Amino acid sequence: MPAPVSLPDLAVGTRVEEPLLVWDVEQRTQSDGSPFVILTLANSTGRVKSAPFWSSDVHKVEGVQKGAVVSVIGEVGLYRTDRQLKVTSLRPVARELVDWSRLLPSVGDVTPWWKKVEEWRVEMADGGFRRAVGLFYDDPDFRTQYERCPASLNNHHAELGGLLKHTVEVGVIARQIAKTCNAAWDVVLAGALLHDIGKLEAYRWDGLFEMTEAGSLLGHVALGSLMLDRRLDEPEQPVVAEEERLLLQHLVLSHHGELEFGSPVRPMTLEAEVLHFADSASAATTNFAAALREAANFGDGESVSKPIWTLDRRRVYRGGA
Amino acid sequence: MPAPVSLPDLAVGTRVEEPLLVWDVEQRTQSDGSPFVILTLANSTGRVKSAPFWSSDVHKVEGVQKGAVVSVIGEVGLYRTDRQLKVTSLRPVARELVDWSRLLPSVGDVTPWWKKVEEWRVEMADGGFRRAVGLFYDDPDFRTQYERCPASLNNHHAELGGLLKHTVEVGVIARQIAKTCNAAWDVVLAGALLHDIGKLEAYRWDGLFEMTEAGSLLGHVALGSLMLDRRLDEPEQPVVAEEERLLLQHLVLSHHGELEFGSPVRPMTLEAEVLHFADSASAATTNFAAALREAANFGDGESVSKPIWTLDRRRVYRGGA
Amino acid sequence: MPAPVSLPDLAVGTRVEEPLLVWDVEQRTQSDGSPFVILTLANSTGRVKSAPFWSSDVHKVEGVQKGAVVSVIGEVGLYRTDRQLKVTSLRPVARELVDWSRLLPSVGDVTPWWKKVEEWRVEMADGGFRRAVGLFYDDPDFRTQYERCPASLNNHHAELGGLLKHTVEVGVIARQIAKTCNAAWDVVLAGALLHDIGKLEAYRWDGLFEMTEAGSLLGHVALGSLMLDRRLDEPEQPVVAEEERLLLQHLVLSHHGELEFGSPVRPMTLEAEVLHFADSASAATTNFAAALREAANFGDGESVSKPIWTLDRRRVYRGGA
Amino acid sequence: MPAPVSLPDLAVGTRVEEPLLVWDVEQRTQSDGSPFVILTLANSTGRVKSAPFWSSDVHKVEGVQKGAVVSVIGEVGLYRTDRQLKVTSLRPVARELVDWSRLLPSVGDVTPWWKKVEEWRVEMADGGFRRAVGLFYDDPDFRTQYERCPASLNNHHAELGGLLKHTVEVGVIARQIAKTCNAAWDVVLAGALLHDIGKLEAYRWDGLFEMTEAGSLLGHVALGSLMLDRRLDEPEQPVVAEEERLLLQHLVLSHHGELEFGSPVRPMTLEAEVLHFADSASAATTNFAAALREAANFGDGESVSKPIWTLDRRRVYRGGA
Amino acid sequence: MPAPVSLPDLAVGTRVEEPLLVWDVEQRTQSDGSPFVILTLANSTGRVKSAPFWSSDVHKVEGVQKGAVVSVIGEVGLYRTDRQLKVTSLRPVARELVDWSRLLPSVGDVTPWWKKVEEWRVEMADGGFRRAVGLFYDDPDFRTQYERCPASLNNHHAELGGLLKHTVEVGVIARQIAKTCNAAWDVVLAGALLHDIGKLEAYRWDGLFEMTEAGSLLGHVALGSLMLDRRLDEPEQPVVAEEERLLLQHLVLSHHGELEFGSPVRPMTLEAEVLHFADSASAATTNFAAALREAANFGDGESVSKPIWTLDRRRVYRGGA
Amino acid sequence: MPAPVSLPDLAVGTRVEEPLLVWDVEQRTQSDGSPFVILTLANSTGRVKSAPFWSSDVHKVEGVQKGAVVSVIGEVGLYRTDRQLKVTSLRPVARELVDWSRLLPSVGDVTPWWKKVEEWRVEMADGGFRRAVGLFYDDPDFRTQYERCPASLNNHHAELGGLLKHTVEVGVIARQIAKTCNAAWDVVLAGALLHDIGKLEAYRWDGLFEMTEAGSLLGHVALGSLMLDRRLDEPEQPVVAEEERLLLQHLVLSHHGELEFGSPVRPMTLEAEVLHFADSASAATTNFAAALREAANFGDGESVSKPIWTLDRRRVYRGGA
Repeated sequence: MPAPVSLPDLAVGTRVEEPLLVWDVEQRTQSDGSPFVILTLANSTGRVKSAPFWSSDVHKVEGVQKGAVVSVIGEVGLYRTDRQLKVTSLRPVARELVDWSRLLPSVGDVTPWWKKVEEWRVEMADGGFRRAVGLFYDDPDFRTQYERCPASLNNHHAELGGLLKHTVEVGVIARQIAKTCNAAWDVVLAGALLHDIGKLEAYRWDGLFEMTEAGSLLGHVALGSLMLDRRLDEPEQPVVAEEERLLLQHLVLSHHGELEFGSPVRPMTLEAEVLHFADSASAATTNFAAALREAANFGDGESVSKPIWTLDRRRVYRGGA
Repeated sequence: MPAPVSLPDLAVGTRVEEPLLVWDVEQRTQSDGSPFVILTLANSTGRVKSAPFWSSDVHKVEGVQKGAVVSVIGEVGLYRTDRQLKVTSLRPVARELVDWSRLLPSVGDVTPWWKKVEEWRVEMADGGFRRAVGLFYDDPDFRTQYERCPASLNNHHAELGGLLKHTVEVGVIARQIAKTCNAAWDVVLAGALLHDIGKLEAYRWDGLFEMTEAGSLLGHVALGSLMLDRRLDEPEQPVVAEEERLLLQHLVLSHHGELEFGSPVRPMTLEAEVLHFADSASAATTNFAAALREAANFGDGESVSKPIWTLDRRRVYRGGA
Repeated sequence: MPAPVSLPDLAVGTRVEEPLLVWDVEQRTQSDGSPFVILTLANSTGRVKSAPFWSSDVHKVEGVQKGAVVSVIGEVGLYRTDRQLKVTSLRPVARELVDWSRLLPSVGDVTPWWKKVEEWRVEMADGGFRRAVGLFYDDPDFRTQYERCPASLNNHHAELGGLLKHTVEVGVIARQIAKTCNAAWDVVLAGALLHDIGKLEAYRWDGLFEMTEAGSLLGHVALGSLMLDRRLDEPEQPVVAEEERLLLQHLVLSHHGELEFGSPVRPMTLEAEVLHFADSASAATTNFAAALREAANFGDGESVSKPIWTLDRRRVYRGGA
Repeated sequence: MPAPVSLPDLAVGTRVEEPLLVWDVEQRTQSDGSPFVILTLANSTGRVKSAPFWSSDVHKVEGVQKGAVVSVIGEVGLYRTDRQLKVTSLRPVARELVDWSRLLPSVGDVTPWWKKVEEWRVEMADGGFRRAVGLFYDDPDFRTQYERCPASLNNHHAELGGLLKHTVEVGVIARQIAKTCNAAWDVVLAGALLHDIGKLEAYRWDGLFEMTEAGSLLGHVALGSLMLDRRLDEPEQPVVAEEERLLLQHLVLSHHGELEFGSPVRPMTLEAEVLHFADSASAATTNFAAALREAANFGDGESVSKPIWTLDRRRVYRGGA
Repeated sequence: MPAPVSLPDLAVGTRVEEPLLVWDVEQRTQSDGSPFVILTLANSTGRVKSAPFWSSDVHKVEGVQKGAVVSVIGEVGLYRTDRQLKVTSLRPVARELVDWSRLLPSVGDVTPWWKKVEEWRVEMADGGFRRAVGLFYDDPDFRTQYERCPASLNNHHAELGGLLKHTVEVGVIARQIAKTCNAAWDVVLAGALLHDIGKLEAYRWDGLFEMTEAGSLLGHVALGSLMLDRRLDEPEQPVVAEEERLLLQHLVLSHHGELEFGSPVRPMTLEAEVLHFADSASAATTNFAAALREAANFGDGESVSKPIWTLDRRRVYRGGA
Repeated sequence: MPAPVSLPDLAVGTRVEEPLLVWDVEQRTQSDGSPFVILTLANSTGRVKSAPFWSSDVHKVEGVQKGAVVSVIGEVGLYRTDRQLKVTSLRPVARELVDWSRLLPSVGDVTPWWKKVEEWRVEMADGGFRRAVGLFYDDPDFRTQYERCPASLNNHHAELGGLLKHTVEVGVIARQIAKTCNAAWDVVLAGALLHDIGKLEAYRWDGLFEMTEAGSLLGHVALGSLMLDRRLDEPEQPVVAEEERLLLQHLVLSHHGELEFGSPVRPMTLEAEVLHFADSASAATTNFAAALREAANFGDGESVSKPIWTLDRRRVYRGGA
């Protein structure tokens, strides 16, 4: 199957015939009061705006909603300096037929990330921490979900597979920090692999990335704690000692580092402290790198950006502009 | 059985023969380097200091530790202007023989508080919220623990039964707030009855009031959420709908109102908002009333107190002093 | 006299002939540069937009300003999916002829609130606190103003009579809190009845709800303190003891609870603490309930709202959506 | 009458026969349990500790309380490296006979400060601001109090006459700021002269410097506003226009600049902004200079001080140490 | 040479033939999709918008960028209630021919400010502080730059010469504060003259006022410290003692007063404290006065403004409106 | 030369004959008023208290000051449960003869840390960043100082060589973070090697660890920036491009991450962001590990510590206690 068409690179005149995700639907009005509609269409490569559907064509997009998948036929035109897709045909696609990895931003092949995870798991000493990790990571259903879940909805690693990638980054950074301060690597690793499991219940990612009701009302930190508790209660024989259980829960609950960032407790073990720093470093530097890549953050020829929301209103410098 | 001796009211010369709790053990040294020991002894009425055990008597208190219960014989003397208990005999009491309600501060008879709780439960409409409450409040073990647990370790309602008393106060206040804003009383009530259940696993109260390891590492908010989850998973048939479950968890998790006070999510439902205000009002006004009662907060003849720790360093005014 | 027409429920084609308040006047421009005007018209039931007054009709609304009352004749039309009022005639109404309760949002009949206030006043023990309350609540002019004043301009209880309703809510909640902590009810009640009197001088409410210059420059907290002081100085014989006077002033000045919320002193008496919590609970839960009722806070079919300004950017959950 | 003895400069062996203020009374205990008392005695030059009154002499200081004035006869001795006053006789002095300016820290002769105030008043244009100032500054009782009141209890200008001195400093600085930004000097001056009048009712200064109950419960900002209001209401004919009255009240209420510093409103006029900066500058630099002068803030030979409480825990540098 | 045309006062029908600065270039689109451009043109008196350059004329402004200087011929027309400049000819002007003081906001003649600076310098005692000041203020290149640099980009004193004016204001205010607290005037003066030198490297002002890359990456505080260090290292013989050097650097580095305002150290000397207060007072009151002058901050006939960004969202009151 | 005696492990009765550092001198008084002195003596292994020098022996320690080095002869005794060193002879040692690495806490052999640094430097691409690093790291004087300087005075890595160790830890962690976000390693490395050079001028470490006056008045961040600037100006030919210079200065100035932690600018480049996270992680986890090791942080048998100052008042959990 060919790769999805690269939407940001479409040349004027190109014919497009592709399944695309409806990212946004703008209802607008001409000065004479007649309505028109502009769609934002997306796939894993990026987004493109449609040409307006004027009054006479508005019926073509009736019922088309944010998050729908549509099979689009059209041609790339130009509107002032912006490319737009002149849509001639647009048909809904049944969700069960959709290959989401073609439509949504994605980290791509997750094999290398899984390989790293498995390498680490093999190294773990036998014991409660290893067994707790196995309760999740030996479960094929968990793996299927985990390798697709994004790490955030519109912030760092907001792409299919982003959570797994973030997990490995946290592990890689945490391993180094743990070495410098002699933290117990097995505990830190268990924390890295389990700290964000709550996102599986907090996010929806097949279509638009959205928060679930549980995600809104409980938050991924508490959800992760509940998910861990349930798995630990499942097996027939106790596999994790009481203190190990407390330490694992503490890793999950404290990983945001401060109460005001949503952790109900601050890190009280060296391993939780290490995990918190690795988690922050992975998230912040990924956000930072993305801010530098995003051309829209910079005025023409400017080397200093506008204030960036995900970086607490900081400006970034891209140099040599 | 006679009431415990009122320690704050002991007259000089009184003979005491009582079981008492060792509240504190101070190891001190005379100027010639010889050691002496002073005990602080307590029962439910308050505390008294022992006369010093000088070098020659220090062996009598060897091995006596904070939190122990001892059968004490002695006589009340005077040291400058302070009464002190000159101990002549002191024997350990086995913990299983201890009647803690005689030794620890206590709200006293909890019957009226239970009565209020049951009145409210009867009013609840049949449904998930009522059943969720029943999972705890129909369990005799839960009731036995709940009616003894303090509501804090050294802050508001820090006494046996304090948690039950606080629970009813929260309910009483919340009921009124719910009326003014048309919040769903059954939901608010379920929140009032369940919001602090985590304290059963976070505190120890038979002897000194102390934090458990789980209380330190997870906090009573997350512990309550886990306890609720486990009970909801127990019954053979589902009794609580998924949305009810989310709303109950949200009440428990958000009841501190703000992230910086240890709630991982802020109140998102009207009922959670009501609960939060009722909880704060009960805790703060109880602390405030206690600060006014505590003579040590005021200089001689002063109507304005020293800054009070539990009131965020505020001074209080007792008037007519 | 018939009830005012329900503006949010107007069917297309309905003929309207009503006095309406000019809530807003938008001056806009067509792409050819010709001007047009859209009015937002309001009465106590809500608001509706007018159809545009195009260039040729702009003279009809010349001189019409925000806050004016106009007698409108027109018919309800449709513009895309929104109803709009096609105005055919529009005449100014003299302000002295206006029945504001038909034009502004209102709590409706205030009798029950007054009844509650009087019930409470009767219970008050004779003494300074009762007399101080009487200095205001026995004055017909005060009552006339008080029963119309809103409790805020665009936040909680922003409706005619809102202040009286809020006052009773604060009293109802405070009474319950006072019971749990043994605060002196007479003092708390005096605080509930007097804490917000400053709003009479801080707000204007006959027409648009607006801040007075005194409201901007002094704030309702200080204004209330000054109003209280003046009344206490009026009577020929001293009726309020010096300490009572201080306690009353303290209730008024400290009721916002924290310096950063505009109280120059924090609550130092138990009664001021109770008042502060009751005031916050009434205001916050009223805002919360309003946020849930306001459909515009939610996207189509969404159960979680956008961030709500009056709730410190929190999102709220309306469930079962 | 000779100047008071300089307590910080007393040579060992000097005989002292002076009225002194009892600054503090320490009740202490020897290791054998016998009590002793040490007094801290003060006059306007500073303080000195007494030698201990051992058990046998404790009766001599029975009933002597903080704040009392006593006629002391004694001789200066040495205890290790510290001078102490060996008291041989100590008699109470009736408060009505006390010359407080000899006993309390004082700015000394206030004539030059009054002179500056009068110079400025003469320059004021006729009008409401001038008349408002006159309501206070033409009143001999006000002047008598004002020229003695300290500007704080234990912070900047905590000395008799400190408030007048601070007032003039604020005026001097404000005048210069007003010039640079073209603020109305008459208004700023009225603010400088009236902003702290509330301290007359908030402080007690004949004896120990203490907060009154009104000072605690209302604060000097609100007290000043009330005092201003009363005077403005007194005269038979209105002398101050309504807007002038609002602006004066605004100056008093907003002079702390921020809500969290106790102003219920922030400065909204240029004149209030100027006043706030001048007030802060006078207070902060006076505190800073005092911190540098106080030897106890520095370790031996250290040029960098300990953290200073009145400077928000900053350290100060005295150089060339 | 005649004064620049006053753009805010242009009468309709006036012919304009002037060099003007292109302050902004708005690319817009008609409803039929055809593009048009509106320029904002500026000189030292203010700004005016051009009439639109419609599709057929867009080529006339091709390549015209923000910050360019153009020689404009046109006539003033009216668009609804706003004046607009109908441009008939527009030619680029070579930057080397530009007289910036005609095109940019400016404090005007800087002679009086220099006079004040020189007066002060003459008074300085011979020594390191005087010599350090001379290293800059005796350098003609420094003077040329300093007398043109603005004191901020779009906040207080954002005009040519603003930095020099601000410098003198700081000096004038600081002198008065220094007198009241006995700070060393020579040191304070050196601080006033040197504290903001970093702005010479942090800002660009010939054309649009912009931040340099050094200004973004290092900030004017650190840049000033580096500039000072380099000059102090230049002379052949040491002219400034080590401690003087530290004190000068401390003045520059601490002048923002608090870490969160960008000073890496807080003021530790009385002179640095005085400088900080004078600097804040000059900046804040200048901003305040500007906010009052700016009509756009106020609604029609309103005496209370919208929240003002440069005043931390405060509203200001202009009275008598 | 034998290793220094391990002070924390001294058995009672051991004879000690060693050079020791005077860590503290306590002047105290017996109840009869006679003075005595207790020394705290230290070497690189830890500290021990001396037995008291009673009145008759006080002359032996006359003139002995904090920070002195003394040759001590004595014997280990017991005072209650604490060991104390009964000193029989005590002679000053000339500072030039002192081997500080025996007397002060130390990271020990620094060879491995240097090795790592050199490995990294070899990998750097030729260019400005490498050359800038060489200006310091090729200078033997710099290396001698750098390998001895502590990384803080009484916080993380407060030991001889601590700065070098911390530098390598930062490098090791930063390298891993840089990999995950594709930051330029050469730039990050230059930042890791240079970010804390200011500590060489901010600290004194031969004897007690102390802040220099420059350290107090300028801070190590600004000092580092100045030191970098001077070296970059030294060489005859420019070796570092202007943008590289800005980026290096930015790394040094922004490494604390936030203004309130003393950085005058926040990180604006990805490399500065990486450096900041690595620096924080090294410092925080080192503090954390030290807090866990320090027995005095825990009560007897307690697994949860007291609040730890260097961890922002957090408690830590040591498990299995």
